Amino acid sequence: MAEQAGKPGETGADALCDTLLANDVDVCFANPGTSEMHFVAALDRKQQMRCILGLFEGVVTGAADGYARMADKPAATLLHTGPGLANGLANMHNARRAHTPMVNVVGDHASYHLPYDAPLTSDIESLARPMSGFVRRIGSAADVSPATAEAVSAAQRAPGAVTTLILPADYAWGTAPQVAPVKAELRAPTAADPDRVKAAHKALTNGRKTVVLLTGTALRAEALETAQAIADATGATLMAQQSNGRMERGRGRVQINRVPYPVDLAIAALKDFEQIILVGAKFPVVFFGYPDKPSSPVPEGCTSLTLADPSDDLPGALEALADAVGAGKATIPDAPAIPDLATGKLGPESLAITLGHHLPDNAIICDESVTTGRDFFRFTFGAAQHDWLQVTGGAIGGGMPLAVGAAIACPDRKVVNLQADGSAMYTNQALWTMARENLDVCVVIFANRKYQILLGELKGVGAGAPGKNASQMLNLDEPAIDWVSLAKGMGVEAARADTAEGFTDLFARAMKTKGPFLIEASI
Amino acid sequence: MAEQAGKPGETGADALCDTLLANDVDVCFANPGTSEMHFVAALDRKQQMRCILGLFEGVVTGAADGYARMADKPAATLLHTGPGLANGLANMHNARRAHTPMVNVVGDHASYHLPYDAPLTSDIESLARPMSGFVRRIGSAADVSPATAEAVSAAQRAPGAVTTLILPADYAWGTAPQVAPVKAELRAPTAADPDRVKAAHKALTNGRKTVVLLTGTALRAEALETAQAIADATGATLMAQQSNGRMERGRGRVQINRVPYPVDLAIAALKDFEQIILVGAKFPVVFFGYPDKPSSPVPEGCTSLTLADPSDDLPGALEALADAVGAGKATIPDAPAIPDLATGKLGPESLAITLGHHLPDNAIICDESVTTGRDFFRFTFGAAQHDWLQVTGGAIGGGMPLAVGAAIACPDRKVVNLQADGSAMYTNQALWTMARENLDVCVVIFANRKYQILLGELKGVGAGAPGKNASQMLNLDEPAIDWVSLAKGMGVEAARADTAEGFTDLFARAMKTKGPFLIEASI
Repeated sequence: MAEQAGKPGETGADALCDTLLANDVDVCFANPGTSEMHFVAALDRKQQMRCILGLFEGVVTGAADGYARMADKPAATLLHTGPGLANGLANMHNARRAHTPMVNVVGDHASYHLPYDAPLTSDIESLARPMSGFVRRIGSAADVSPATAEAVSAAQRAPGAVTTLILPADYAWGTAPQVAPVKAELRAPTAADPDRVKAAHKALTNGRKTVVLLTGTALRAEALETAQAIADATGATLMAQQSNGRMERGRGRVQINRVPYPVDLAIAALKDFEQIILVGAKFPVVFFGYPDKPSSPVPEGCTSLTLADPSDDLPGALEALADAVGAGKATIPDAPAIPDLATGKLGPESLAITLGHHLPDNAIICDESVTTGRDFFRFTFGAAQHDWLQVTGGAIGGGMPLAVGAAIACPDRKVVNLQADGSAMYTNQALWTMARENLDVCVVIFANRKYQILLGELKGVGAGAPGKNASQMLNLDEPAIDWVSLAKGMGVEAARADTAEGFTDLFARAMKTKGPFLIEASI
Repeated sequence: MAEQAGKPGETGADALCDTLLANDVDVCFANPGTSEMHFVAALDRKQQMRCILGLFEGVVTGAADGYARMADKPAATLLHTGPGLANGLANMHNARRAHTPMVNVVGDHASYHLPYDAPLTSDIESLARPMSGFVRRIGSAADVSPATAEAVSAAQRAPGAVTTLILPADYAWGTAPQVAPVKAELRAPTAADPDRVKAAHKALTNGRKTVVLLTGTALRAEALETAQAIADATGATLMAQQSNGRMERGRGRVQINRVPYPVDLAIAALKDFEQIILVGAKFPVVFFGYPDKPSSPVPEGCTSLTLADPSDDLPGALEALADAVGAGKATIPDAPAIPDLATGKLGPESLAITLGHHLPDNAIICDESVTTGRDFFRFTFGAAQHDWLQVTGGAIGGGMPLAVGAAIACPDRKVVNLQADGSAMYTNQALWTMARENLDVCVVIFANRKYQILLGELKGVGAGAPGKNASQMLNLDEPAIDWVSLAKGMGVEAARADTAEGFTDLFARAMKTKGPFLIEASI
């Protein structure tokens, strides 16, 4: 038989909320179920906590990812048992690859009920571990506050981690000790290692052609200026990792390209380098292995050394290196002029040009454009300053939820979601949360009505033109998805653009209007 | 460096398709990615395989569940790496609880590429195990056919299992030995155990009040008649498990109730019984533990014995028991008359009455109606004969995908999906597959615009009326989802009913028209 429920305000669930709030975690993205009802009741007693409902768990975890990338602190999530967690795993995977801090709270059956193997019972630990840097099952109502503080600590330990707390229902409803909530231990990133700085300095003067590969906080505007100063002083080239949680870019900022996604382009981009200096970045690998292609695009004989690990103070390491090489002030060249607005057929280039002209100051771009957006950078170096967030783990369905979270974190900034149609479908429920919270998000759906990336890959494997079965699996044109209806169904105003000028009109108008809006760009 | 790709027709991927086809697995629900391109190319060479695209993996696995429940054989699924599998886990969980045979093929990176930890890399085994009865990573191109046959065997071993094969890309593209595909070993269910039959017979004559609890194939029409004959001869009561993969019911068939979902109703339904005989069923447990409520609704002192395990021949065990107790022919009482069609306000009762009157012969009901449909059975005992499929594991989002799969398995039967609005959102992408395949499915959305079940649970935990945060998490009315727009966005014709007579008109018309149709029933 079960324990008695604690008095309202004195339960484990209350301790959970209080501990989150005491540690400055005050946003909870949620999709609750029965086993979380005491948590919901406790949240109802804490008006300082902002609760945001997602109608699917992939929205919840993806939003927590976008939130933390922009707020530089974690959100909590509330997920219902193993299947609810499972639905959130794909975007936890993306968050893990971005080193995003996140505190997932997964409700489970009451501890004494687990041996009965009720229908919803599953092995939550096994599900959580692959996508979490920290997993902890709470052991009692008294354990709730220390366990939560431990999760917040683990989430915020540099560079940040996805953490998962499993909360059995009886510890949520049981009486918790009435003591002050446990404070998380916050550990600053590790300071630059002088030996590594010395080695990088030496490498930069050995005459070999060098690329400095950056990610994480090294892609914030100030750190990029330091990196540019190093490049100016040494002749090294700067490049960002293929996929990055957040880059600060636009007019007046350092112009930096990413390692391209397609394997042949990545090989071409790196072919001339003789050494790589890693600043928080991973040694480059290709996204997928292919017959007759290497697993890394780095040329043979190219050496690599690490200036800083992801858990290090990346801006600090760059500053130390800049000092060592005697770097001056960075030279930021003028951005290439953005071509005139296009008319006629709508395509990747005309879309990018419109972005370049019409992005408002301080916008946040959440990019899951996959094929269409591959070449957007060159037309937006000269756009108004903005942040660019990528889907970092290759798990489909990150874009719209990221936009939800970024908009919650930064209510005064316009969020632009560049979104392929195929991947948008995975978490289309995010549109409803945009409407519910009246988020200032413009979703641009690139409606090519196919899994374009896969049609390319199919060609790549030498399968020839797709036959019936392959077409059936790679084309989305029968029926074509009507994104305007779909968005309206979830309360988001929407319109379709078939021409470059039509798109520019809609986009420019959306940039000047607050609130959610979706543009179906037929390409 | 990678292996050379095998010649088209001679790859591991070809061996996979050939082995599936040789073992009568000829439907593949798919959501492919790059690592599966050789599998897609191989499928393209096998026109006997029917490939059905789902725009989200929860649709794919849920459809495979519905298909196998109706076809009595497994479908294959094609999923893309760890995140793709993760998206399909919730409906694999439901399938596991229904003992549904299923062969999931999860593409992974080429084996030599895994150590590079490319962005999409994750621990697929850890993700798969909680929801799979069998997990096997394929070890070479030559291993593809034996591994696949092993998975098909495991899937079809009584009572059926969800199985997961992990297919590294290089074994899909490598050259497989050109030999006949390996045939699966198919094991029949275990025959009835004479000692158990004897014990059950003895129990049925000991004067204690007895309930015979049935599930699985014991709920097919013929087996139910045998069970009814036993009940007639012994005075025992028949009851179905709370949640069941498939029940055959309707006019002229045995009328049997399920153990109710709400804990208090379950306790009330079982309170008078002194012994339980389990026929493939689990000993009853409540769905969730609650403070001050027991984990099982079975009264103290009530004993239980097992006539047959899920892996046994359940109809055979019932027949043996019928012989032992000297049962005659079953008496099937007339079904209670269905009340006259209602007018005015639309609610659970008027909905059920319309179903009772207008279900066509041989319909398949896929039920994820949660709260609204809880009491539908009593008005449909006298409906035309039909199959009733439930979401068996409590994982949300099973209903519409089940309907997709059932419609693929039984193209000549009308499928009716009774669907709560909240749970419909999780896998709304199923509508697109209904349109794409022109499936004969009528989706009835019970639009109460809230998580009704959770509002009830919140009340149950003594939290009082929901405040701001609780309302924010449990109500779906701001904005209200416009299901007609949503369905049209995915190519499914739809209409809204606000009154009982309006619903009856739409439903009756839908029953007479082929193809997908959605009714938003505002309740």
